[in-house]
Amino acid sequence: MDSFEFCRPTRYIFGQGEERSVGRIVSEYGYRHALVVYGTGSVVRSGLLGRVCAALDEAGVAHDELGGVQPNPRADKVYEGVALGKSRGVDFVLAVGGGSAIDTAKAIALGIPTDTDFFDFYLGLAQPQKALRTGVILTIPAAGSEGSNSSVIQKEVDGAVQKLGLSHDFNVPLFSILNPELTFTLPPYQTACGVVDMLAHVMERYFTNTRDVSITDRTCEAVMLSIIETAPRAIADPSDYGARANLMWAGMLAHNNLCGVGREQDWTTHHLEHQLSALYDVAHGAGLAVLFPCWMERVINHDVMRLAQFAVRVFNVPMDFADPGRTARQGIAALRAFYRSIGMPLSFRDIGARREDIERLLAMLGIDRHPEGHFVVLSREDCEAIYTRAATYGEE
Amino acid sequence: MDSFEFCRPTRYIFGQGEERSVGRIVSEYGYRHALVVYGTGSVVRSGLLGRVCAALDEAGVAHDELGGVQPNPRADKVYEGVALGKSRGVDFVLAVGGGSAIDTAKAIALGIPTDTDFFDFYLGLAQPQKALRTGVILTIPAAGSEGSNSSVIQKEVDGAVQKLGLSHDFNVPLFSILNPELTFTLPPYQTACGVVDMLAHVMERYFTNTRDVSITDRTCEAVMLSIIETAPRAIADPSDYGARANLMWAGMLAHNNLCGVGREQDWTTHHLEHQLSALYDVAHGAGLAVLFPCWMERVINHDVMRLAQFAVRVFNVPMDFADPGRTARQGIAALRAFYRSIGMPLSFRDIGARREDIERLLAMLGIDRHPEGHFVVLSREDCEAIYTRAATYGEE
Repeated sequence: MDSFEFCRPTRYIFGQGEERSVGRIVSEYGYRHALVVYGTGSVVRSGLLGRVCAALDEAGVAHDELGGVQPNPRADKVYEGVALGKSRGVDFVLAVGGGSAIDTAKAIALGIPTDTDFFDFYLGLAQPQKALRTGVILTIPAAGSEGSNSSVIQKEVDGAVQKLGLSHDFNVPLFSILNPELTFTLPPYQTACGVVDMLAHVMERYFTNTRDVSITDRTCEAVMLSIIETAPRAIADPSDYGARANLMWAGMLAHNNLCGVGREQDWTTHHLEHQLSALYDVAHGAGLAVLFPCWMERVINHDVMRLAQFAVRVFNVPMDFADPGRTARQGIAALRAFYRSIGMPLSFRDIGARREDIERLLAMLGIDRHPEGHFVVLSREDCEAIYTRAATYGEE
Repeated sequence: MDSFEFCRPTRYIFGQGEERSVGRIVSEYGYRHALVVYGTGSVVRSGLLGRVCAALDEAGVAHDELGGVQPNPRADKVYEGVALGKSRGVDFVLAVGGGSAIDTAKAIALGIPTDTDFFDFYLGLAQPQKALRTGVILTIPAAGSEGSNSSVIQKEVDGAVQKLGLSHDFNVPLFSILNPELTFTLPPYQTACGVVDMLAHVMERYFTNTRDVSITDRTCEAVMLSIIETAPRAIADPSDYGARANLMWAGMLAHNNLCGVGREQDWTTHHLEHQLSALYDVAHGAGLAVLFPCWMERVINHDVMRLAQFAVRVFNVPMDFADPGRTARQGIAALRAFYRSIGMPLSFRDIGARREDIERLLAMLGIDRHPEGHFVVLSREDCEAIYTRAATYGEE
């Protein structure tokens, strides 16, 4: 096990109706003026935004609203929020929504107390010196941003779309309110996309070269097993409180790095997917469902036993002691079957991506400037092979 | 899943040699004068105390030392620390050791800023209003106190020994330094006692009546599986870094309540054991090894399927679908076999306890004043039967 530091001080308030506590909580911390950041219509239509604003009013917390955050959140909206926050003197940023609203809120919180362009922090051109604190009312469990120190924003720079992540202690929310009922209105497709994203957050930490990490292996497997056993229930019955509650907490655990401490991680599939999202505006989870099995097929021979362990422990594949590679391949097949069973795509065709764009995806990935990955360091040829496999899957 | 709040802001610094950072860390938080609390000889003999004091000196942090904390820590030592801390003007309490040193440090940190007798907080006669912050350098992974909000202290009141716990946010350490190398000198018996205690911390949360808690069930099982697979290595080779590292992190996860959120818990076996520790000064883990299987046998019919799940998922017992009770009983047998394999006692005789004392144990437990437990509410007759089973185990 490698050395590490771990500190995740977010306060979680979990349960039915807890969003009504938000005014009291914000005011207990001494904040007086919140910027409420949210996405498109559903937060308004469901009445949630109204309840949140009423709770803030009741506690005497002033507030401004910034709606219209898109999936794969854009820098433009962050600039808008930073300007609004500065002009209105907000001292707290409250996200109401999923990963896009939260990541936008985190970026706004970094941008308000500085004259530096917030995107310079994402580009690595500057280091944030301070930030406003953020709070979260979660409506889409998937990104894990409610408990993580990361934020991902995309911006068009010189005609090319850049989707960049920033990991920083400033990005850890002060509190996150998790009411599983708020996810009842999430449609099956979006629920499934979230499930794939959660699993990917664990898997990017699970496939490691670090030896002797039993406790984090077991933790990873626990989170994956729970997601796999409860996701079908939430998709079959969107109002299944128990299933929604399990997924909501599992989504946080999948990405607060409890699954990743003390071990090398490998975020290649996320990087490969970010290019699909940027080019086709496909849901992040859908892109991950297409790419993750293709990545696993490409790296299988690097550590057959680790992929076999995944197959046996997560998908209950019987171990083939004479041919562990067969077990590993059955694990990949089981993962694809699970994705398919929850309505997820498995190929470029399924998401409207095109084989002809692979060169462009590789350019966007920047593979000619740097290799990708840690579990296996991938060359341009490897990345091209993964995209090509995804482009041709199901056509053989 | 039940509603809950969860906030564990402790900063963990994990890895080889990290105790040398303690001066820098304490001074970064702005503290100027630490009270260093430790146990009996080994912290001094190993040179650890010297390294800690040197690190504090180097960072310009003044310090006083309070050694001699005993296992099953006593109120006397807390009073001594409170008086010393007040007279010397300490502003921080640093524990170097295991659960006893940490729990003593937490109690001292509660006692210093008040004129109230600290034990009144444990008796429920008063509520703490403030406390000094605490830090930990862990040498014995077991109690989980390095990441928990609880502290257990015992005191003789009116001739009777009372061992009482206090759970409070003030008890959460500011930071905990976890260097697995510091546990290399822990003898096999003490290592095994710690392992039993860790497992018990999970099991007291695992056996619950709360339905639909997949994610916490799986988390509990993960921690138990990792402890069971790494403990024999640490006992066979005390310098096995990977095994020691796994146990150290697992011990924290076993008791920071990640395994217990959203569900009813049942701390009966801990309560039953505290009386054994108080009467015979037996190691807490040894007492738990004797009692836990006896408690399980007593409650088996309340929820056979939960005990069967434990057997199947934690000890890989084949499920007997025609007779789940048989599977459950095999799980209890497997737990006893595991305890025995790491050198733990299984009966009163093994720990020098006496059947003749059962009435006295029941009186100390206070069973005539209140029933025990939640998973199953136990009567005096139940508790007597559990102690009697422990007294006669192996004699049939």
